[in-house]
Amino acid sequence: MKPPARKKRKGPPLRNLRLTIEYDGTRYFGWQVQEGKSTVQGEVERAVREISGSEATVIGSGRTDAGVHAVGQVANFRTSCRIPAAKWPLALNAHLPEDIRVVSAEDVPIEFHAQFNAKRKTYVYTVLNRDVASAIERDHCHFVRRTLDLAAMSEGAKFLVGTHDFRAFGSDMATKEKTIRTIDRAEILSERPRVRFVFRGTGFLYNQVRAMVGTLLDVGLGKAPPDHVKAVLEGRDRTKAGANVPARGLCLVSVEYD
Amino acid sequence: MKPPARKKRKGPPLRNLRLTIEYDGTRYFGWQVQEGKSTVQGEVERAVREISGSEATVIGSGRTDAGVHAVGQVANFRTSCRIPAAKWPLALNAHLPEDIRVVSAEDVPIEFHAQFNAKRKTYVYTVLNRDVASAIERDHCHFVRRTLDLAAMSEGAKFLVGTHDFRAFGSDMATKEKTIRTIDRAEILSERPRVRFVFRGTGFLYNQVRAMVGTLLDVGLGKAPPDHVKAVLEGRDRTKAGANVPARGLCLVSVEYD
Repeated sequence: MKPPARKKRKGPPLRNLRLTIEYDGTRYFGWQVQEGKSTVQGEVERAVREISGSEATVIGSGRTDAGVHAVGQVANFRTSCRIPAAKWPLALNAHLPEDIRVVSAEDVPIEFHAQFNAKRKTYVYTVLNRDVASAIERDHCHFVRRTLDLAAMSEGAKFLVGTHDFRAFGSDMATKEKTIRTIDRAEILSERPRVRFVFRGTGFLYNQVRAMVGTLLDVGLGKAPPDHVKAVLEGRDRTKAGANVPARGLCLVSVEYD
Repeated sequence: MKPPARKKRKGPPLRNLRLTIEYDGTRYFGWQVQEGKSTVQGEVERAVREISGSEATVIGSGRTDAGVHAVGQVANFRTSCRIPAAKWPLALNAHLPEDIRVVSAEDVPIEFHAQFNAKRKTYVYTVLNRDVASAIERDHCHFVRRTLDLAAMSEGAKFLVGTHDFRAFGSDMATKEKTIRTIDRAEILSERPRVRFVFRGTGFLYNQVRAMVGTLLDVGLGKAPPDHVKAVLEGRDRTKAGANVPARGLCLVSVEYD
C-alpha cells in the first residue's frame, strides 16, 4: 500500500521572501515570463529553482517593458527553503547573469504581495541632450540633439501632478482598464548634458511614463507650449500626446510599501 | 604614351584633422589596430576610408587596453578630403558602431601629432564599493565588497604626486623603456557607493594606472599602511605593488595639448 499523499508534502513551513533587484534591461524582453523569450522574471525564477530545488513564482511589483532598466524593482516569492534571508542575494547572484543583481532580501509576512501591496513607484527617464550620442551610456539614455527648454518642460510637468484620468498617455485603451492614477511628483532635473524626468505615483498605465516624456519633449523642443500637457491630459485622446520615447532611457528606481 | 605619374597625384592639399572620441571599450581589443581583431583604431580608420575613399592612419594619443573606455581620447589623421571639420563627427558616426562616437573634429596644423604632442592625460578609475555588484554599471567599474578606507587611500595617493621613476608600477620592464613620469594629480573622490581614482600626468607606463589603483586598494583594505605606496615606489620592484585591477573600471577622460 502506498503511503497517503499528504505525508509526502510534509516539510518546513512556507515563508515569504522579498527581493530588491537591479537589472540592465537591454538583453531582456522585459520583466514578465514569456514563452521562449529571455526575461528577468524567468531568470530569477530559474535561479530560485536551482537553489531551492522547487518551483516558485517570483511576483514583481509590476512589469517593465523590453529594454527598460531597474535599480529598485521589488519582488517576492514563497519557499520552504531554509537559507537565511541575508544569504539569498549571494546565492541568487551566483546563479544569475551579471546584468541582473539581487541587491537585498528579507523575510516578510506570508501575505505580502509585491504587486498588490505596492503603494508608490518612482521612475526616472534620462535624456542625453548634447551634440553627439554617448558611446558609454547608449543603452541607458535617449539621445536628443536639439537644445531642450527645461523651464518650459518643468512648467508642463506640473500639470501631471494630482489625481487624473491618464487615458491620453496610456496605450491601447480598447480594454476597459481603469485609467485614474495619482502622481505626486513630476520633475525635470538638470544634470547637463543629462536631463532626468522623475515621476512618482500610485501606479502608471502601460507606456504612460514614456508617453508623458514624449509629450514633455514636444514642449521642450518648442513644438507646443507648456499648457499643451494640460490640454492633452484633459482631452483624454492618445493621438494628441507625444510619441513614446524609447525604452532604454527608462529606469524603475524604487517601489514603496506601507 | 602614359601621362607622367605626377599628374595623377594632383589634387586638393592634405589637411590634418583632430578628433575627440568617446568609446565603450568592452567589445574591443583596445585602441590599437591588431590583425584579425576588432579595435577602436581599426573601426575609426575604416570609417575614414569609407568617407574619404582613401586610407589614412588615425594616430591616437596613446593605446588603451582591451576593455578600457574613453570619453576624451584624442586622435588625428591627414586627408585630402574636403568635407568641413564640423561635418566630420556626423559623417564618421554614421559609419561607426554605436559604442564609438566621434564627439568633435577640428582642423589643426599639418604637423600636429596626437601622440607626440600630448602634454597631459587624465584617467579616472571607478570602484563600486557596496555589498552587491551593479547590473547596470558592471562593464564600467570594478566591484569591491569590503568597505574601503578612503582617508588612508588619499594619504597613500599623495606619494604618487611628483616626478618619479614609476618602474614599480609598470609591466614587463625587460625593455629599456624610460620609466620616469610626472603625476600632478592623484586623488580619491568619494561618490558613494562609487569611489573615483583620478590621475593626471605627463604620461603613464603600460598598466601603470591599474597597478597604482591595485596598490591603493591594498591600503584601502587595510592590508598595508598609506606609506606602503612610498615604499613600493622607491623600491622600484613590480612584485611589491598591488595586482592590476580589471580594465573595465578604467576610463581615459581627457588629453591636453599646448
